[in-house]
Amino acid sequence: MTVRVETPPWRVVTIVGVGLIGGSFALALRKAGFQGRIIGVSSPRTVQAALKCGAIQEALPLEEALPQSDAVFLSQPIERILETLNALDQYVRPGTLITDAGSTKAAIVERAARTIHVGRFVGGHPMAGKETRGVDAADADLFRGRPWVLTSPDQELERWIEKIGARLVILEAAEHDRLVGIVSHLPQLLSTALASAFASEPAAMRIAGPAAIDLTRLALSPYDIWRDILATNTAEIDAALASFIARLERIRANLTDDAAMAQEFDRAGDAARALRRSS
Amino acid sequence: MTVRVETPPWRVVTIVGVGLIGGSFALALRKAGFQGRIIGVSSPRTVQAALKCGAIQEALPLEEALPQSDAVFLSQPIERILETLNALDQYVRPGTLITDAGSTKAAIVERAARTIHVGRFVGGHPMAGKETRGVDAADADLFRGRPWVLTSPDQELERWIEKIGARLVILEAAEHDRLVGIVSHLPQLLSTALASAFASEPAAMRIAGPAAIDLTRLALSPYDIWRDILATNTAEIDAALASFIARLERIRANLTDDAAMAQEFDRAGDAARALRRSS
Repeated sequence: MTVRVETPPWRVVTIVGVGLIGGSFALALRKAGFQGRIIGVSSPRTVQAALKCGAIQEALPLEEALPQSDAVFLSQPIERILETLNALDQYVRPGTLITDAGSTKAAIVERAARTIHVGRFVGGHPMAGKETRGVDAADADLFRGRPWVLTSPDQELERWIEKIGARLVILEAAEHDRLVGIVSHLPQLLSTALASAFASEPAAMRIAGPAAIDLTRLALSPYDIWRDILATNTAEIDAALASFIARLERIRANLTDDAAMAQEFDRAGDAARALRRSS
Repeated sequence: MTVRVETPPWRVVTIVGVGLIGGSFALALRKAGFQGRIIGVSSPRTVQAALKCGAIQEALPLEEALPQSDAVFLSQPIERILETLNALDQYVRPGTLITDAGSTKAAIVERAARTIHVGRFVGGHPMAGKETRGVDAADADLFRGRPWVLTSPDQELERWIEKIGARLVILEAAEHDRLVGIVSHLPQLLSTALASAFASEPAAMRIAGPAAIDLTRLALSPYDIWRDILATNTAEIDAALASFIARLERIRANLTDDAAMAQEFDRAGDAARALRRSS
């Protein structure tokens, strides 16, 4: 017989790293009816901005916030999440839910398995973002309609994810990392490589059109977000690139094979349309 | 001493293939103050639609339209332009300007050099388009702010290109084809290959976000436009793909080389921003 553990409702939530994602989660919780306290742990400048825009009601150091918290949301850069996981467990009460918003999951889930024993860790990845960063761009509706991946179930966390309008997806960390390698990290590197190719051809700029504009938008992303992703998902990104290169080589071999190219365009068009229906 | 040949003003323009591009050119000419006659040569259904929406004032068979024309604009698919070039010269008056709107230029310019002796051919490529095709989507402002490549100069044609608000770019056919291979055909094939890769990973669809959407928009393009482009620019597309594959292999080798990746992202970001300023 399976006993479903009832997780207690949250009264105090601590958000570590109150930027765009952390601030938006705080605003989304509030908008969805969360009545408890939301504490922010961040740099002095960030907590000032977060208090001012109403994302958090209180700012405390990590070691003072954690003993009071029912849930802890780590919305820092990946490498900082890994560091926070090393320091966290000594301050939390037994059973405190710890979750995160890191864009890769295997390294974080593995670190948590080694460091979190008093608390209970559930890896998370809310798949939303904006071009503007920082808590001033925080938005209670940022996650609405967007996927929110969890690496394992948690009743209360799932309840809030659904209340704030995100689409819950449960995926093991390794499968999450493999899939985002294909669907997110590969597109980024293709866009970066294409813009970099254009940099070698200034004359091409004069005749670039919407195709070139579309495919280089991601290349505007700053590297500092990507450093940690490349460092913590290297093997899956390498595999996605290798598989894509093999696909491009097949296209090269088939450039004048009308039937093969028609099939490739049809298959791609179908997938592009399916993507637009599902997202 | 160089004598600049004054080309006579156009009184009668014939548009062969009155679809989105041909119809838009007709409407753009009219809006820019063209007072002469515009004759359409197309299928019965297309000329009906073109007459109805006012793009053309008269529909005639090719052999009746050409002897009356000062300028002929071939806005058919590439393979049809090549066929029309075979049939054209016998009907035109000496010195009649013949230009086109084909997306590749070397095959067309080479064909014209062999077949056009009475008329005078100038290759053209107005770099504009829309998701919707056909004369019903024709738009007098379609070319405004967009590049319009000519493979050689022509006073009167250049005057109208500028009047309709396009940006004149003179490029030799081979250089045009090399550059569009990089800036237009390569992005298309990357988008098609990426969407095709997604088709193999249905699970990835559930967590696809704006990055995946952005990079697969071009994959929605129907193959029938691309068949002729792949057939007439094979060598340049193959070279662009080979060079891009080499770039992806360098990225694979450098995934955890922080300095190299930072440089790649910076270079790409600069190019993506420059592209947005220039287009």
